[in-house]
Amino acid sequence: MKRREPSGAAVLQPGITAAIADAVLAELVERGYARLSMEGVAKRAGVGKSALYRRWRTKREMVLAVLAEITVPMAEAADTGTLRGDIRASVDAITAWLTEPPFSRIIPDLVAESARTPELAKAIAATIGEPRRAVGRPRLERAIARGELPAGTDLEMAQDLVAGLVYWRMVVRQAPVEPDYPDRVTDTVLRALGAVPD
Amino acid sequence: MKRREPSGAAVLQPGITAAIADAVLAELVERGYARLSMEGVAKRAGVGKSALYRRWRTKREMVLAVLAEITVPMAEAADTGTLRGDIRASVDAITAWLTEPPFSRIIPDLVAESARTPELAKAIAATIGEPRRAVGRPRLERAIARGELPAGTDLEMAQDLVAGLVYWRMVVRQAPVEPDYPDRVTDTVLRALGAVPD
Repeated sequence: MKRREPSGAAVLQPGITAAIADAVLAELVERGYARLSMEGVAKRAGVGKSALYRRWRTKREMVLAVLAEITVPMAEAADTGTLRGDIRASVDAITAWLTEPPFSRIIPDLVAESARTPELAKAIAATIGEPRRAVGRPRLERAIARGELPAGTDLEMAQDLVAGLVYWRMVVRQAPVEPDYPDRVTDTVLRALGAVPD
Repeated sequence: MKRREPSGAAVLQPGITAAIADAVLAELVERGYARLSMEGVAKRAGVGKSALYRRWRTKREMVLAVLAEITVPMAEAADTGTLRGDIRASVDAITAWLTEPPFSRIIPDLVAESARTPELAKAIAATIGEPRRAVGRPRLERAIARGELPAGTDLEMAQDLVAGLVYWRMVVRQAPVEPDYPDRVTDTVLRALGAVPD
């Protein structure tokens, strides 16, 4: 049986999709998720609302698809060959993601909306959080294979450590950080994981 | 030289202050910091706006004074006599603070506002963040004095670890946690700090 294509799927133009994505990010930064509207995004992108609805059924679906497409690949980091190098690279990648525009504005806004709307939190976890964690996990599995981490290492806790330390210090507290802060986070995470010293 | 009292200070009634504080919390939960107004708080508390301005000069001052009065004492935790016991108690205290109403709604909203307004972030750090950390610090200093932690322990990182892990997992990710999660956070923090095993 042939799979039905959504009507109009054949005529989706990548240039229009990119213009809509830019408009979604700009509206999220300026207005926030709660006040973002399909109308506002269409207007800013210079397209009709039908161009949006041809791609996504709802505002939530549109926003999360746009964010996932950009932020999931951002979780990929170089394979440096050592656990320390890989953790350090992920500290840098997560710091850039959480502390630089546009996501330094967008993420705290979505967290606040998620506190009001548990279904939004679930949708974010499914489309962004879990895929990002899946992209990052092989780094830790390679370290186990190399004998740099114990076999039973709690990989979920390992990933929470890097993101949690960076988010709490830089986004929640907005505390000043010294130049050696990324190295100190790396050391802290390695100790927390019981990493075999190199 | 006699210190000048703010005019009207003699007639501030604690019952009215308490009613205003309740109204501030309720407005923060329902409307958020950006849309909270002196008018709205006065109306909900059943007082005139002058009752607010007699106590605080601005909305920001009022909100932070109310939050500080409640949340700074929440950072105090029992002196259990061991580092493990003290860390476990602070995991529970911070989890309750960050994940239960009204602060489960109020804190993410203030973090989102702080991302837009750096001066708000600074004011929150000065009135809430730093005082809370000062209240919690003696727990760690006692552990150093008992020889349970190395003398040079990074106390700021130690405090970030507990709050960062709990906030990222439970508030940002809203991920389900197993009953042994608080113990696993405690173990992770102890290892990260290089605590001498008991």
